[in-house]
Amino acid sequence: MIPKAITGLQCHQCNWMVPADPFHYTCPKCGKNLDFIYDYELIGSSWSKLDLEQDPDRSSWRYLPLLPVKNAPEDTSIVVGGTPLVNLPKIAKAHGIAILQIKDDTRNPSGSLKDRATELCIQHAREQGKKTIVAASTGNAGSSLAALSAYHGVQSIIFAPASAPPAKLTQIRQHGAKLVPVDANYDTAFDLAFDWAKKHDHYSRNTGVNPILAEGKKTVALEIAEQRNWQAPDHVFIPVGDGCIISGVFKGFFDLVALGWIDHLPRLHAVQADGSAAIVDSLIRGGEISPVKANTVADSISVDQPRDGDKARRAILESGGLGFRISDQQILAAQQNLSASTGIFAEPAAATAYAGFLQASSQGIFQAGDQVVVLITGTGLKDIPNAQKNLVDIEPVTADMLSVEHYLGSD
Amino acid sequence: MIPKAITGLQCHQCNWMVPADPFHYTCPKCGKNLDFIYDYELIGSSWSKLDLEQDPDRSSWRYLPLLPVKNAPEDTSIVVGGTPLVNLPKIAKAHGIAILQIKDDTRNPSGSLKDRATELCIQHAREQGKKTIVAASTGNAGSSLAALSAYHGVQSIIFAPASAPPAKLTQIRQHGAKLVPVDANYDTAFDLAFDWAKKHDHYSRNTGVNPILAEGKKTVALEIAEQRNWQAPDHVFIPVGDGCIISGVFKGFFDLVALGWIDHLPRLHAVQADGSAAIVDSLIRGGEISPVKANTVADSISVDQPRDGDKARRAILESGGLGFRISDQQILAAQQNLSASTGIFAEPAAATAYAGFLQASSQGIFQAGDQVVVLITGTGLKDIPNAQKNLVDIEPVTADMLSVEHYLGSD
Repeated sequence: MIPKAITGLQCHQCNWMVPADPFHYTCPKCGKNLDFIYDYELIGSSWSKLDLEQDPDRSSWRYLPLLPVKNAPEDTSIVVGGTPLVNLPKIAKAHGIAILQIKDDTRNPSGSLKDRATELCIQHAREQGKKTIVAASTGNAGSSLAALSAYHGVQSIIFAPASAPPAKLTQIRQHGAKLVPVDANYDTAFDLAFDWAKKHDHYSRNTGVNPILAEGKKTVALEIAEQRNWQAPDHVFIPVGDGCIISGVFKGFFDLVALGWIDHLPRLHAVQADGSAAIVDSLIRGGEISPVKANTVADSISVDQPRDGDKARRAILESGGLGFRISDQQILAAQQNLSASTGIFAEPAAATAYAGFLQASSQGIFQAGDQVVVLITGTGLKDIPNAQKNLVDIEPVTADMLSVEHYLGSD
Repeated sequence: MIPKAITGLQCHQCNWMVPADPFHYTCPKCGKNLDFIYDYELIGSSWSKLDLEQDPDRSSWRYLPLLPVKNAPEDTSIVVGGTPLVNLPKIAKAHGIAILQIKDDTRNPSGSLKDRATELCIQHAREQGKKTIVAASTGNAGSSLAALSAYHGVQSIIFAPASAPPAKLTQIRQHGAKLVPVDANYDTAFDLAFDWAKKHDHYSRNTGVNPILAEGKKTVALEIAEQRNWQAPDHVFIPVGDGCIISGVFKGFFDLVALGWIDHLPRLHAVQADGSAAIVDSLIRGGEISPVKANTVADSISVDQPRDGDKARRAILESGGLGFRISDQQILAAQQNLSASTGIFAEPAAATAYAGFLQASSQGIFQAGDQVVVLITGTGLKDIPNAQKNLVDIEPVTADMLSVEHYLGSD
């Protein structure tokens, strides 16, 4: 067995070192978010790219030596991760770059990248002896937790804004999770979920504070690197709300640089909706992240107070990334553009990353040889009403060839 | 290059042999459906299980020597096929069988098994020099054709009943396909689409007559066998409408028996909705398949006249399979049961297969050592309104801990 090489956790703010056991969600000294710290030399001494090449497991558990749990779950045949990296040579050419690839994380079991964090979380909860997992969610984290809890046989309680897309709330309930639809926004649901978990000694899957989640999300970066034969891209576009996904992506590439498996960090670009741009605003303005009053069509990245904002900002700055702000109208246009040019149907929050790519291109940020990856985090099938906003109503056609000829023209 | 070993096509009805070039959709002699005929000896002489083991391509194109096209598409990185075969040991035990596995084809690019047929079809159309593909669809085939047409850069026209689930119609339009929403049922849309394609010399992707489609769908059987290390299961449960999926699954296992790669055909059980059970009715009653007036919640298998009914019946009878009829209520109950016990959210038509498994189990059809596969053909995310029929409305909870405690009880 490959040894677990965790030397502890470190506060990203005050740098305090915290032992991994007993587990702390946040820094016991200053209350800020923690990072898992690995002994990369130890990991590299017993695990190689060749080991990975010979590993038949396509799921994110192939990266177990870089994950902060003792074991993989008993069964992983539902396959979290292992999602396609889709080549788009024609679109790359049109934008004057060498390579454009979409990392299509809509292809996870519950339809979003959140499954990567959830499955690691369930395994960690088990290893911590917890039987119930609590989460706050704008929808995807909740439906992910509900689905994978059903698969792995654990209990889950999910706090969500009652205004979340009906498909996501339905998905949560279909999977038999306990849904608490809160008559409030995500931020309030978050606080309630956190307090509930603490009071009842349940495991908290709350995105943006539990450092396990970034460790789960980082597997998407590990996969991108491996699928690109250990060549880091130049740019990665990431939709940002709470900031936890970009922190996770950063951690994945950081690990690989530390292991010496890739030679540089890609520039991680944060793409936010105009109506929920606290992190990007702080980059532009400088200084602390100030909460906003979130209001955007991209529900999965609609947050007032980014809970992992500081780590997200570090990820952007240390990687040389930029911040992009996208209007709701541009988001829906990018969603349709992506669907029609690639076959990938993204939810608005995910399409926001593609809108960021389009904006960067129009701003002349790319150079001729650039290799770009856009991270698509969730499926558009979860939010049909918003996709329909792009579409003009069409009348049914009468069932005879003459009417069809008239409707289709002389095509 | 592995030689294409197609010796021609054969009418399943009158046994007439038809050359593969020029291509015929149906028997030029009697008008019935055709099967592709392969020279298995030739295929087996230049392609082995070991070749497959060493093939890094996870998509259905790994089976190219068994597909009736010259080449794979230029790019296959969107990955059609390669879907998980999910082990469910606890449920197997509860039903007194050795193995239960779900083949989760919701994980295809557009969320359904139809992508397997569509991508082969697009490649075949290209090799035939056709630029526009026409299909009739109850929804999944259409959204599949729209998505993969966008990816591969071909034109598509899709005829669908205007009453199809809005998510599927939205998906079709998002991907930029030309949608003809017909004010009629699937059967009428089918006839219109077929006539349109003929008149305009477009390629017809109409399920149930074009033999390419069964060849595409058969890859799900090839994958099941390979994922089970070339051990055929004892039973496979398949949702049946037109009959094309079960014909495809049959063809896949048939090919493998002919190649000597598996030692028997699994029993292929056809599961139909009560309100659309023309094929199962004919099995029970004997004699020809008579059309019905279809009416079921399971839109993807709601057809009056099964276009591939005769081949479907042959698949059931030759494999020793049975027919099952499931009420709409049982379908929705099975959908929720499946979601809550496995984490897999199936659309009603797909959940029908699981309902068939449950019915078979309660009828005592299984023996202790049996190995069972259930084929889940499409995602529940495409039809949220039907999933909601299972769920009682719940009121939002006021955003304070007291209300939450009250709502969740002392949990």
